[in-house]
Amino acid sequence: MDKRAAHIARRMADIEPFHVMDLLARARRLEAAGRSIVHLEIGEPDFPTPEPIMEAGRKALADGHTHYTPAVGLPALRETIAGFYRDRHGVDVSPERIIITPGASGALLLVMAVLLDPGDQVLMADPGYPCNRHFVRTFEGEAVSVPVGPESAYQLTAEHLESHWGERSVAAMVASPANPTGTLVSADTMKRMLAFTAGRGGRLIVDEIYHGLVYDEEAITALAHSPDVFVINSFSKYFGMTGWRLGWIVAPEDYVRSIDKLAQNLFLAAPTPAQHAALAAFQPETLQILDARREAFRERRDFLLPALRDLGFGIPVTPEGAFYIYADSTAFDSDSQRLAERLLEEVGVAITPGLDFGHHRPQAHVRFAYTREIAELEEGVARLRRSLG
Amino acid sequence: MDKRAAHIARRMADIEPFHVMDLLARARRLEAAGRSIVHLEIGEPDFPTPEPIMEAGRKALADGHTHYTPAVGLPALRETIAGFYRDRHGVDVSPERIIITPGASGALLLVMAVLLDPGDQVLMADPGYPCNRHFVRTFEGEAVSVPVGPESAYQLTAEHLESHWGERSVAAMVASPANPTGTLVSADTMKRMLAFTAGRGGRLIVDEIYHGLVYDEEAITALAHSPDVFVINSFSKYFGMTGWRLGWIVAPEDYVRSIDKLAQNLFLAAPTPAQHAALAAFQPETLQILDARREAFRERRDFLLPALRDLGFGIPVTPEGAFYIYADSTAFDSDSQRLAERLLEEVGVAITPGLDFGHHRPQAHVRFAYTREIAELEEGVARLRRSLG
Ligand SMILES: Cc1ncc(COP(=O)(O)O)c(C=O)c1O
Ligand SMILES: Cc1ncc(COP(=O)(O)O)c(C=O)c1O
Repeated sequence: MDKRAAHIARRMADIEPFHVMDLLARARRLEAAGRSIVHLEIGEPDFPTPEPIMEAGRKALADGHTHYTPAVGLPALRETIAGFYRDRHGVDVSPERIIITPGASGALLLVMAVLLDPGDQVLMADPGYPCNRHFVRTFEGEAVSVPVGPESAYQLTAEHLESHWGERSVAAMVASPANPTGTLVSADTMKRMLAFTAGRGGRLIVDEIYHGLVYDEEAITALAHSPDVFVINSFSKYFGMTGWRLGWIVAPEDYVRSIDKLAQNLFLAAPTPAQHAALAAFQPETLQILDARREAFRERRDFLLPALRDLGFGIPVTPEGAFYIYADSTAFDSDSQRLAERLLEEVGVAITPGLDFGHHRPQAHVRFAYTREIAELEEGVARLRRSLG
Repeated sequence: MDKRAAHIARRMADIEPFHVMDLLARARRLEAAGRSIVHLEIGEPDFPTPEPIMEAGRKALADGHTHYTPAVGLPALRETIAGFYRDRHGVDVSPERIIITPGASGALLLVMAVLLDPGDQVLMADPGYPCNRHFVRTFEGEAVSVPVGPESAYQLTAEHLESHWGERSVAAMVASPANPTGTLVSADTMKRMLAFTAGRGGRLIVDEIYHGLVYDEEAITALAHSPDVFVINSFSKYFGMTGWRLGWIVAPEDYVRSIDKLAQNLFLAAPTPAQHAALAAFQPETLQILDARREAFRERRDFLLPALRDLGFGIPVTPEGAFYIYADSTAFDSDSQRLAERLLEEVGVAITPGLDFGHHRPQAHVRFAYTREIAELEEGVARLRRSLG
């Protein structure tokens, strides 16, 4: 073996970076050179962490909470989250089943590591959250990307599971609301998928990270339908705590011990100041702030959605949650990457081309994020009109 | 397939929990029942995070630094760490090669994921840090545990690598100082291991997390010998930031892009408030506090080491760093687990049996951690004398 050749694991050939990063870097360079850029590409709320959470974080530091916590998290936080399921969702979840993680990212990592043997398959929607297929690949599993379109609101259905489930399939995963489409899985579809996976000895993994951000109805947690589901959640999006790196898993009871073992070895624990800060996340005054923010997000969607449709973007399914709009951009260019580059250069609008979200017609789609104030969205739309209208 | 049988990945059968946790739980129950327990089992400094770091953390929150950072970390922190290598170690490391991670744990995870294909071997010392072999197993690699004893200061040597390196070996890993033994790898041995692994197209991974805590000489970073080594470090131990979850990798240049991709997908980023806080970790007033703490640790070692030898524990190699003493306990019991349980019950002293650190004569050894004040160590020794003397 050539001693200068770097030995790199084969999985790395299949793991893609966030392609939008190159565009973002270009946007930053333009900004540094004095250009004004409207950011419609960023998957992170513009709002700061709510003040009661900040206050609890400051207090945690003042009280010297800077040591390791148990691997599965602070008992008080696990209980608080159980209380949230009880109060907000009317679902009884034992705190024992709640595992605190470094973001939903840490949750996804643990769940894949505990479920997947090499070659095991996980079914997921394409388009979808880019990291999902890479988590599966990281643990030598095989992501089975199921092409989805407007006919199923870009979500998996029980019929998809039936037609794609194979010998080596062990799980299916959905996000509701989803990134990049903002669409929900209906209660009926969720129940049918739960019944299907249970019947095959498999598992459903439901990512509810955008759960607090649903605009036209109350989102129902998959835990309301079954205790045998893996639910992933996070303090990042609804709770405005992206940088704190805190999320959680609600695991079926017979996986808790294994996940605990893994968390001990892979993470030691989630960040301590964040865990103490998050204790304030469910207090009434925090929830009041968060619900006002949800209203603001709804207004943004209600502005941006018709404006984009009006411009000629194809948005056949109304996004009901998260802060994303996934749009067919073929009216303007058959290559969404080229379109995104052109919009950035010509009118200083940054959007995310479909490429990051999978292999099913990515060049026909772009994602808009409404993580900026209405005024900026208005400016963005005006600029888009200048270029495309 | 029985639809009630939980599908759990095979790796989970090989991944062990921290066995000491059961003992710790028992200690907590005794404490809750009013018993006084002397804690010599805890692998975490008792000192709080130094005030300048706390202050920077509070300021980060006040300034609203709660959003995601780049996956590889804040540019300013990467530069500050590069400066530390230059100023403290006289070694020139480009900030580009420094990747900020969620603890050394996150660093170990990324390095194993980027290096290991299924079946690939990593050589490591037994006894050693328990998570290492589990990181390897998690990514379907094979940990080759090399039994080490006092004759090599419980460390791997180039001769060990020569005799254990095989067709499927891709890396060897060492920690200097090591957990559980507190011993160092000499500069000469390090150079010979680097030459050996380079000659075989493999890599050396050097865990320098206890690097600041060396008592009889200045520790030399492996980076002084080669730019082609993976160095792992952390803000946890020397910098007193365990709960903040922050560490770093210095990677060989040709791995940086891959590690960045992986970090994007698996972690998104390390905690933001922690990264801002850590900017203060290398300031002169912080280093002054840390060096005073190192002196305190040295005093503790200089008290505990002769006291344990005097009691009859076998400590043939003087631990030169970290805050651990690894001792042969066969003078008291051929089963260190039973001994630890007895000491806890009889005299309320908690220590870690060898079991957690590997399979090479664990029942003959225990680990003492001097992470408590001298007065508590004195009390601990008095109690040990009562039971064993
Ligand atoms: C669908 C989905 N799941 C999980 C995550 C991970 O978020 P975090 O690790 O910050 O909780 C994201 C982040 O964008 C996401 O969009
Ligand atoms: C040798 C060694 N490496 C790595 C770690 C991980 O520490 P952290 O993730 O807190 O940086 C530890 C923790 O005890 C350790 O002893």
